[in-house]
Order: sequence, then C-alpha cells, then structure tokens
Amino acid sequence: MKIFFATHNPGKVREFKKILDGIADVEQINLEYDEIQSDNPEEVAKDAAKKLAEKYGKPIVVEDSGLFIDSLNGFPGVHSAPIHKQIGLKGILKLMEGVSDRGCEYRSAVGYCESGKKAVTFLGTEKGTISREARGTHGFGHDSIFMPEGSGKTYGETANVEDAKKFRRKAVEKLVEWLKEKGC
Amino acid sequence: MKIFFATHNPGKVREFKKILDGIADVEQINLEYDEIQSDNPEEVAKDAAKKLAEKYGKPIVVEDSGLFIDSLNGFPGVHSAPIHKQIGLKGILKLMEGVSDRGCEYRSAVGYCESGKKAVTFLGTEKGTISREARGTHGFGHDSIFMPEGSGKTYGETANVEDAKKFRRKAVEKLVEWLKEKGC
Repeated sequence: MKIFFATHNPGKVREFKKILDGIADVEQINLEYDEIQSDNPEEVAKDAAKKLAEKYGKPIVVEDSGLFIDSLNGFPGVHSAPIHKQIGLKGILKLMEGVSDRGCEYRSAVGYCESGKKAVTFLGTEKGTISREARGTHGFGHDSIFMPEGSGKTYGETANVEDAKKFRRKAVEKLVEWLKEKGC
Repeated sequence: MKIFFATHNPGKVREFKKILDGIADVEQINLEYDEIQSDNPEEVAKDAAKKLAEKYGKPIVVEDSGLFIDSLNGFPGVHSAPIHKQIGLKGILKLMEGVSDRGCEYRSAVGYCESGKKAVTFLGTEKGTISREARGTHGFGHDSIFMPEGSGKTYGETANVEDAKKFRRKAVEKLVEWLKEKGC
C-alpha cells in the first residue's frame, strides 16, 4: 500500500521510509494544513490527518513532534519548529542557564487516516536532558542539545542519529503494528 | 448591527466594546478555531474569521495579536499567548539579558467576515522597547515589559492601559472606518 506523508521535512521522510520498509510505500507530499490550537501533539496530528485524508481522498500520515522541557512547562512543545527558527539552540540554552532540572522529553505523534475512516494516532516519547552547550552537527532541530537518558552524548554527536532516535521510531512502529493487525 | 467576537479574553472584549460603541454591539462568543500555520497575524485572523463566519452564519470578528521582538527574529510573535503561559515574562527577560537592541512591536490583526462575503483584515502596530525588568500590574500578557515608544513606563505601570494601548485600537478603528463606509 501507499501512504502519503504530509511534511516539508526530508529528514523525517527518511526515518519513516526505513521503518515502514516492506509494509508501505511512503511518498512525501507537500501540503499545508491548519492546526488546531492545542498543546497536545496527538490532537494536532490526528486532526490534521483527518482533514487532509478527507480533502485529498488518500491515506495520509502526519507527524507532529516537539521537545518538551520540564522546567519550562513544556516549552517549546508543539511549536518547536517555528520557535527554533526564531531563537535557535542559543535561545533554549539561555533559558536553561542556571537551571539544575534539565529534564525534557521528545514527543512524536503520528496521525493516520484513510478517507471516510476514523483517524488514529500513536505517541512515541523519549526522555533526556538538555546539555550545557550545543554539541555535534548530526540530526536537525534540537538534536544538538538533547542527550537521551543514560547517554553523555547529544543526538548531534551521534553519527547514526536517524537510527538512534527512539521517539519517532516508537510512534511509527505503533502505526506499523496497527497496519499489520488491519491486514495491510 | 451585532458582531460576534470569537475570543476567550475578556480584556480584549472590553477594549473592542469601547471602540465600537455606537457602531456595533459586540458579543463575546467562545468558539475554538484552527489556525493556519503562519507567522503573519493578518493571515491568521483573516482565515479564522472566514472559517467561523461560514460555519456559524454570523458576522464574526477575530483578533490575533502578539509581541514581536526585533533581536529575537519576531519571537514570541503569533504564539505569544501560549508561550507566555510556558516561560512567562521571566523567560522573555532572560532571553533579553545582555541584549542592547531592545526594540519590539506589538501587532494586532483584526479579521472580520460575514457569511458568504470575503474576509477583510486590519493591522494595528505599535513600536516599543522591552524593559529591563517587569514593572506594574495593569493590562495582561507582555504589558509589564512593554514600554511604548517615547515612554519610560511600561503598560503595566499605566493605570488606563486599555485606553493607552494603541496597536489594538488602531486595528479596531480601521474596522470601524470600513464598517462606516459600508453604511453600517
């Protein structure tokens, strides 16, 4: 089967293709969609998948992810991408200066919908800490300041970052399980 | 005539009622709406007014406003309200520590639409600077760190802040002019 992934991010498409290999063909599709006003990525992804599936009559997958920092009440959260463009890693590190609780979580919500059906959503999370400075150039977004639990390295310092990242993989694997149960 | 103002913010409703007094009755209406993904408040307000007017068959006004800080590439911008809940004034002040360019702008976009008609939008702006610390308790949002151009006082220190704020007033007054020209 073929699934249309509504995203502008080629890095995400590569991650999806690897995990869905043999299950579904993933085709990137550049579609704009309106977001419901919510701080919950699952709600955002589910709603967007539903709207796009009905509008285009195709099986649509949408992914909404973000970095949620405990001591900043979940900032930057669902708006991680636009906020990253504005204040960069430098801004996040400045907000975290002198803050001892550096706990955070990456969250990925994958929404999937076929036209005329109910939308489903799958959440993948991964706990970590915010490093004291940006390190490494692998990955994208906040990867250079995110240290996964039990690791002293940021994802930016991780050469195979696309394989290493767990949060998005967890969400996509839940989708894979669901597709298999459905008999795809 | 009666206009339905889709907002959860009673402070904004008071401001609108004062300016539209004698022109239109403003009734607050608690509606949720999806936002297009844009960093332009005019696009957000216009699109939301259109969607709500068509959905509810009523004349709808929507206001989207935010604080745009020059040295932070427009942060917090269109997401000012949710970001304020997460990092507060403290977060903005921390990001501005040691920053000499403290220029910023309040922007308010008022979108208006009657069912079956084209949506219109009106922008009001007001330049200012970010204060070194939060001062005063009047107003809401970022008012306690916003010093309008030519003033040494923040809006938080301004007792008649609802009358003093120019950006939202400018946008609403443009709407009033437009309604008058239309013969309302």
